[in-house]
Amino acid sequence: MGGGAGAGAPGIQPPDGLLAAVDAYELALMANDLEALDAFFAEDAHTMRGDAAGLLVGHERISRFRQGRGGAPQREIESVEVRTIDDDHALVVSVLAPLSGGRGQQTQLWRRAARGWVIDAAHVSGPARAIDTSVWRVVGTPLVAREPGGALAGCRVAVKDLFDVAGHAVGAGVPAFLAESPRAAASAPAVAALLAAGADVQGIARTDEFAYSIAGRNPHYGTPPNPAVVGGIPGGSSNGPASAVALGQADIGLGTDTGGSIRVPASYQGLWGLRTTHGAVDRGGLLPLAPSFDTVGWLTRDSATLATAASVSLPMGDPDAVQLRRFAVCDAVTALANADVQGAFAGALAGLDSLLEDLERVELPDGDLLFEAFRTVQAAEAWRAHGEWISEHPGALGADIAGRFAWASGFGPDEEAAARVVVLAARAEIERDLDGRVLLLPATSSAAPQANMGAAENEETRGRTLRLTCIAGVAGLPALSVPLLRVAEGPVGLCLVGPRGSDLELIEVGERMANLRR
Amino acid sequence: MGGGAGAGAPGIQPPDGLLAAVDAYELALMANDLEALDAFFAEDAHTMRGDAAGLLVGHERISRFRQGRGGAPQREIESVEVRTIDDDHALVVSVLAPLSGGRGQQTQLWRRAARGWVIDAAHVSGPARAIDTSVWRVVGTPLVAREPGGALAGCRVAVKDLFDVAGHAVGAGVPAFLAESPRAAASAPAVAALLAAGADVQGIARTDEFAYSIAGRNPHYGTPPNPAVVGGIPGGSSNGPASAVALGQADIGLGTDTGGSIRVPASYQGLWGLRTTHGAVDRGGLLPLAPSFDTVGWLTRDSATLATAASVSLPMGDPDAVQLRRFAVCDAVTALANADVQGAFAGALAGLDSLLEDLERVELPDGDLLFEAFRTVQAAEAWRAHGEWISEHPGALGADIAGRFAWASGFGPDEEAAARVVVLAARAEIERDLDGRVLLLPATSSAAPQANMGAAENEETRGRTLRLTCIAGVAGLPALSVPLLRVAEGPVGLCLVGPRGSDLELIEVGERMANLRR
Repeated sequence: MGGGAGAGAPGIQPPDGLLAAVDAYELALMANDLEALDAFFAEDAHTMRGDAAGLLVGHERISRFRQGRGGAPQREIESVEVRTIDDDHALVVSVLAPLSGGRGQQTQLWRRAARGWVIDAAHVSGPARAIDTSVWRVVGTPLVAREPGGALAGCRVAVKDLFDVAGHAVGAGVPAFLAESPRAAASAPAVAALLAAGADVQGIARTDEFAYSIAGRNPHYGTPPNPAVVGGIPGGSSNGPASAVALGQADIGLGTDTGGSIRVPASYQGLWGLRTTHGAVDRGGLLPLAPSFDTVGWLTRDSATLATAASVSLPMGDPDAVQLRRFAVCDAVTALANADVQGAFAGALAGLDSLLEDLERVELPDGDLLFEAFRTVQAAEAWRAHGEWISEHPGALGADIAGRFAWASGFGPDEEAAARVVVLAARAEIERDLDGRVLLLPATSSAAPQANMGAAENEETRGRTLRLTCIAGVAGLPALSVPLLRVAEGPVGLCLVGPRGSDLELIEVGERMANLRR
Repeated sequence: MGGGAGAGAPGIQPPDGLLAAVDAYELALMANDLEALDAFFAEDAHTMRGDAAGLLVGHERISRFRQGRGGAPQREIESVEVRTIDDDHALVVSVLAPLSGGRGQQTQLWRRAARGWVIDAAHVSGPARAIDTSVWRVVGTPLVAREPGGALAGCRVAVKDLFDVAGHAVGAGVPAFLAESPRAAASAPAVAALLAAGADVQGIARTDEFAYSIAGRNPHYGTPPNPAVVGGIPGGSSNGPASAVALGQADIGLGTDTGGSIRVPASYQGLWGLRTTHGAVDRGGLLPLAPSFDTVGWLTRDSATLATAASVSLPMGDPDAVQLRRFAVCDAVTALANADVQGAFAGALAGLDSLLEDLERVELPDGDLLFEAFRTVQAAEAWRAHGEWISEHPGALGADIAGRFAWASGFGPDEEAAARVVVLAARAEIERDLDGRVLLLPATSSAAPQANMGAAENEETRGRTLRLTCIAGVAGLPALSVPLLRVAEGPVGLCLVGPRGSDLELIEVGERMANLRR
C-alpha cells in the first residue's frame, strides 16, 4: 500500500473477539481492577491516555495515574461505534452515560497483539462540572455588576478569597472561617478599581489556608489543576486565581504576594504575574497574612492585560521615572535554581543580549540570613493576624498549615525584633546593591513539582524557591514573573525585580523581553 | 492477519504526506474554510465527530454542524503524537492550547484515500468553562449554607431563577429585570424546605423569560444543552434546572410548572419531573406567571430523589389516601402525539399490563376548547403580573416572548371571564371523567425537537404538546413525567395525571412502572 489507490473507509463489522475485549475492559474499569487494566493497555512507551487533566504517554505513566485515582466514575455505555481498519486494528468510540448524569465520550484504538486485544491509545472526556470546586468558591455571570465600558471591558476577574467582594464573605481557604465571616458591604479597593475599569468579577477563587503557603494545595477544597504541567501542583497561595486564568476561566487573577504567592503560581503555570511595590495598592478590605510584606498583584495570560490591570490599579506613574535600562544578576541567587533552570536562565539572558547591554554581576545579602529573617517576621505577623482565631478553632486547619502556624506561634518579641532589624538592614542593602538596576533571576527554583512528589524533595525545592522569592519580599520591591523559561518538566518564570514604584515600567521591560524571545 | 501472531505496536514515524495534511487541516479549521473541512472528513455515512455536545455520525451531519457554529475557537497545537498503523492509516493525537486559555485534546483517525489523506473519526475535547452561562446564573460550593444532615444530605439543588434565594436577587431570565431586583433577605419556602432537609443550593439556574415558554431557549443567555438528544432543545421553562440535573451538575431541579414547564423538559431530557397539585406547595417568594395554574415541582434523574424532595416539601400525605390502582387513557388525547410517540406509548402500556388491570378508556373535554381557555386565562394573568414592568422596559425581552406578552395584553375582562368559566367547568368535568383514576398520556407530542427546526414545524409540535400538558394545568392536578418512552429522536416521558393531593402516591406508581419496564 502507500501512495497508490488508497484505502477504503473502515468497515463497521467488528473484528473477531474485539467486542468481548471491549466488554471485559469495561468490567475491569468499573471494578477498578488495576492489574487487568494494566494488561489491557499496550505495554509500550508510546501508549497514550488523555483526559481533561492532560495527555499521558507511556504505559508506566498511565499505570501510575490509575494507581492514584481510586477508580473511574461509575457509568453505563450508551452506544458503541466500531470502525474496523483491518483484522487486527479497530477504533472503538463509546458514548458514556455516567451514573451521576451527563454524557461523555471514549475513543480507543484497539490492536490484536499476540496475547489478545490491547489498547494503544485512549481519549476520554467526561461531562462538565457545575463548578470546579478546587479553583472556585462561587462563580457568577458576572458575580458583581461592573461599570459599563472601560479599559478592562470584557475581562473576567478571579478574586482571591482574601478580598472583600460586595455581598460575599471572605473565606481565606478555611471553611470554618468562612462560616463565621459576614457578607462584605463593599468591595475592596483593589477589586473596585478593576470593576471601575469595566472588568467583570467572574468569581471568588481559592487560596491556600490563610495564604500561608506557596504550594497551592488546600486540604478542604483540593488542589487546582495546572494546565501547563500534567500532574503538577499549581503553586500558591494565589492558586485559585492562577489556575482560573491558566484554564481560561478568567482573564485576570487578583492575588496577593507576601513571599511569592503570585510569582510562584505564575512561574509554574506559564503566566504573567506581578507583585507590586509594597504599599502601592490599597490593601483595604484585604485579609492580611504579614502586613510588612503583603502586596496586591495580578496574574494574566498576556502582558497587555496585566499592564491594563496594573495601570488602572496603581497610582499614576512618575513621569520622571528612571528608564529601566540597567540590569543585574547575582550568581549566588541564580545558583539556588535547579541546574536545568539555570541553563534555561542563561540561555534566555543570551537571547536577550541586545536588551541587556548594561548587565552587571552584583552581590546581595546572604540568602539564608535573608530567608531566616523574612520568615521570622512573617511568622510573627501571621500569628498576630490569625493566632487568636486559630487557637479558638482547633482542627479548623489542615495538618500542614496548622503545623506552620504552631511553629509561627513560637517566636518571642526579642526574636521578632532581631529579625526585623535584619530585614530593615537587608532592605537598604539590596537597594544599595541594585542601585536602580533590575535584578534578573529565575522566579522559582524548578518547574511545578509533581503533586505526588515526596515530602523531603518537596521541602528542599520549596526552600530554594523561597530564598529566590523573599528578596523582593524583604526589599518591598515590585517583581514580575515573565513566562520565558522552559525546562523538560514545564514552564518557569524569568523574574524581574525592579526599583520601588517601577511596577508599570517593569511590565514594559518584560514585554520587550517577550517580544525578543518570540 | 487475524487470530495469528498479532500485530506489533504502532510506529511513531508518520506515513508519507500525513503531517502536511494535518497542518493543512489545522489551517482550514482556523480559517473556518467549510469547503476544505468538508473535504478533509471522509464522505461516508460512518464518519464520526464527537465533542462535549455529543457524537455526530455521518459526513452530512458533521457538515451541517460546522455550518451552524461559526468557526472553531482559535488555538495553537502544543504537541502532536502520531501512531502509524500502516502506510495508509494513522492515529493523530494533538494537545490543543486555545488562545483563550486551558488545554484540549484532539484525537483523529486519518486514512489515505485515493484523493489524499482524510479523517474517518475525530474526538475533540476543550477546556472546561468556569460556568455554563446557558444553564446557570450563579453557582456556589454551595451557594447557601444548609442544615447539617437530613434526608437530602449531599443533594445539590438547581433553583429556577424565579424563587427567592437568601442573599440573591431574582432574575426571571431577563437581565433588565435582574438589574432592578433586590437581594432576597430569606429563601422561598420551597427552597427552605429542601435546605432544611440537608440539600445544598448548588446555584440559581436559567429559565425562559418570565417562564412564559416551553421551549427552553433564552435570547440573553443561550439555550442550555440537552445531553439526551444531540442538538435538541432542552424544553422549558424550567430549562436551567432540567439541564443542570441531566448534565449531572445538580441532583434536584427546583422548578415551576404552569402549562408544562417541568413535564416538558423532563420528557425531552429523560428525567423524572413532578408538577404538584395546584396550591400544595407554598408559592411564597416565587415570582408568578399565572397564579391560577402556577405550581412548584422538581426534576431528578431518579425516582428516589424525587420522592424525597416531594415528601420534605409537601404536607404529610393523607393516611386514608385512595390507593392509585385505577388508570385511564383518552384516545383523543393520545392522538395528539406523533405516530412514533403513540407507538412507544402503546408499547409501554402493553408492557405494564400487570399493573394496568383496571385501565379504562375515558372521554375528556375537547382539547382545543381546553387549550384556548387555558391560554386566555394564563395570558390575562401573565400580563397582570408583568405587563406594567414590560411596558416600562421596551426592548427588555427577546422578540418571541415580547410578542407573546404583546398578544397577552390584548385580552379584555369579558374574554378573561368567559375563559375562566370554561376552565372551571372543564376542571370539574375532568375530575368527574377521571373519577379518581390516573390518566396516562405521553408527556409531550414528540421527543425534543432539534434546535434548528423550522418555525412552522416547531409551532405545530408545540401546540400539540401544550394540548397534552394543559389538561393537568386546567384541572390543577398533579402530573408526573416518567422517563419510560423512547423514539428514534430521543426519550419521551410517560405522563401520569393523578387525583388532587396524590402527589406522593403518583411517584410510587411511577416507580412501580419503571421497575416493571427495567
